[in-house]
Amino acid sequence: MHCKLLSGLTLPTAEDVRAAARRIRSHVIKTPLLESPHLNEIAGGRLFIKAEPLQRTGSFKFRGAFNTLCQLTADQRDKGVVAYSSGNHAQGVALAARLLGIQATLLMPADAPHIKVENTKSYGAAVVHFDRYRESREEIGAQLCSDQGAILIKPYDDPHIIAGQGTVGLEIAQQLREMNIQPDLIVAPCGGGGLISGLSLAVKSEIPEVQIFSAEPENFDDTAKSLAAGQIVSIDPKQNSLCDALMAAQPGNMTFAINRELLSGGLVVSENQVRDSVRQAFNRLKLVVEPGGAVAIAALLNNKTEMRGNTAVAVCSGGNIDAALFAEILSD
Amino acid sequence: MHCKLLSGLTLPTAEDVRAAARRIRSHVIKTPLLESPHLNEIAGGRLFIKAEPLQRTGSFKFRGAFNTLCQLTADQRDKGVVAYSSGNHAQGVALAARLLGIQATLLMPADAPHIKVENTKSYGAAVVHFDRYRESREEIGAQLCSDQGAILIKPYDDPHIIAGQGTVGLEIAQQLREMNIQPDLIVAPCGGGGLISGLSLAVKSEIPEVQIFSAEPENFDDTAKSLAAGQIVSIDPKQNSLCDALMAAQPGNMTFAINRELLSGGLVVSENQVRDSVRQAFNRLKLVVEPGGAVAIAALLNNKTEMRGNTAVAVCSGGNIDAALFAEILSD
Repeated sequence: MHCKLLSGLTLPTAEDVRAAARRIRSHVIKTPLLESPHLNEIAGGRLFIKAEPLQRTGSFKFRGAFNTLCQLTADQRDKGVVAYSSGNHAQGVALAARLLGIQATLLMPADAPHIKVENTKSYGAAVVHFDRYRESREEIGAQLCSDQGAILIKPYDDPHIIAGQGTVGLEIAQQLREMNIQPDLIVAPCGGGGLISGLSLAVKSEIPEVQIFSAEPENFDDTAKSLAAGQIVSIDPKQNSLCDALMAAQPGNMTFAINRELLSGGLVVSENQVRDSVRQAFNRLKLVVEPGGAVAIAALLNNKTEMRGNTAVAVCSGGNIDAALFAEILSD
Repeated sequence: MHCKLLSGLTLPTAEDVRAAARRIRSHVIKTPLLESPHLNEIAGGRLFIKAEPLQRTGSFKFRGAFNTLCQLTADQRDKGVVAYSSGNHAQGVALAARLLGIQATLLMPADAPHIKVENTKSYGAAVVHFDRYRESREEIGAQLCSDQGAILIKPYDDPHIIAGQGTVGLEIAQQLREMNIQPDLIVAPCGGGGLISGLSLAVKSEIPEVQIFSAEPENFDDTAKSLAAGQIVSIDPKQNSLCDALMAAQPGNMTFAINRELLSGGLVVSENQVRDSVRQAFNRLKLVVEPGGAVAIAALLNNKTEMRGNTAVAVCSGGNIDAALFAEILSD
């Protein structure tokens, strides 16, 4: 293991991300970097979009889930896994469990997008609903685990999850290198911070001078606030957002310990900017993007950080959006 | 030149497609082959989707346009080009012309999708509209050419266009080879037949035993009828279809001379099957597909040819669809 200790936590490293990449290589899709002259013009620079809606299960979450589940012992696999998630981690865990022959139980909010619930069930997982305004998913999850003797697969604050999600960053670095392109900026969506912390470990080890920013929706800007304060800050979780995938009340302990060292800052976008970016991805990239998947694109199309004349990558993290909401956004 | 003569026509060959691939390599995107377990289940076999909506200009048409325009002499380039098209060939010609510094005039039907007209203009081309129910695009195109001394860039019945579009087939063969997969079937959308004739030249030279089928919408099944009759058959062009990209009244002379030799048959799908496939691509592939781009997927999801237990590739040819129509299809 190549881990370093910081504030009592055993944090993953760039080497862990590389090991994850080797472990999951034949199971994940190396998603393309897309580009559009129209989006470049709006951004005022060269903008690449890492298209994780094209990943298995429609989001990057399959990477971390598979990296974690494939390392369980035979005994652990027999006892099954439990996870809570608004839906993308649920689908990732459900498919990884199916591929590895593991029983999975997913705890999902009652108001999760239908497509996320249906897909999770379609991979053979059991789904248990909870009321996210009144019940604690952590408590229900712990109860399910103790009832079944199952392992809890955390959504972000886990070294194997972080390392798996970080493979997005390794691919970006490799794809840009193959095109002889040096990026100035990378922006990625941030809920609990698993994706951006893993990505930062990988990218900073390969391209130390690149600046990396998190992107969040306006009501769930806990990482931006925490980065500004230099310590973990919580926001009121009883708010709503179009970005169901990014509704974390505070950063993870492990993810924030990494992000405070490696990120250049946190960017925040409005719901209207998210809607506009979903439409731009439809028109210009031909990609179906869910609201939470569009926040990094939104940050760069709206100059939340200096983009002019620069080369940037926006991670588009997922595309699991109900048809009715997508149609409504297109009709705005 | 490696051309053979058949019924007085100088037809392109597989070697011409390979030469086109070398010529356009650094300008086109090698689009991914997508796969979905849900679509495999519906199809009853293994189904790959070649995702040309992710190509520059949102369709495969850029390939043939660039291959043709880059071979013009300096004198020809100076005089500019003219083309007629419902919109995808128009965008392909407009972008290729812009990249090569050539003035382009595009003749487009007055009822072409807005996105196709706007994109064509955005690449710097002049757009002239015509009424496709009352005017002949061939006559207006010829007049524009003689007025300007410009070259007409035909939409399909041209060896350079066919060779360029055929690079889709070369990529499919290469991508499957890299995965050690042998396809049984390939299905591609067919308007005038440029894509499927070029693709067939390339694929049959690399995988002789594969069966290749054209796919068309119900009102514009001229190639299916012509293949069945063994000679060119016209349909009534004054009908309508959701598939604006595929509204040819009859196969091209050159494309049909190739297709009658190399295709196993012509498949025909209904408008409702097209709508359903656009929704499936949204839900399962996270890909924006225009109606004409969805006909090959529709043919395989609806078992228009024996798919059970087989491995097939459906070419998804384009994704230029107006937001209002997409929203309407999603709301069905």
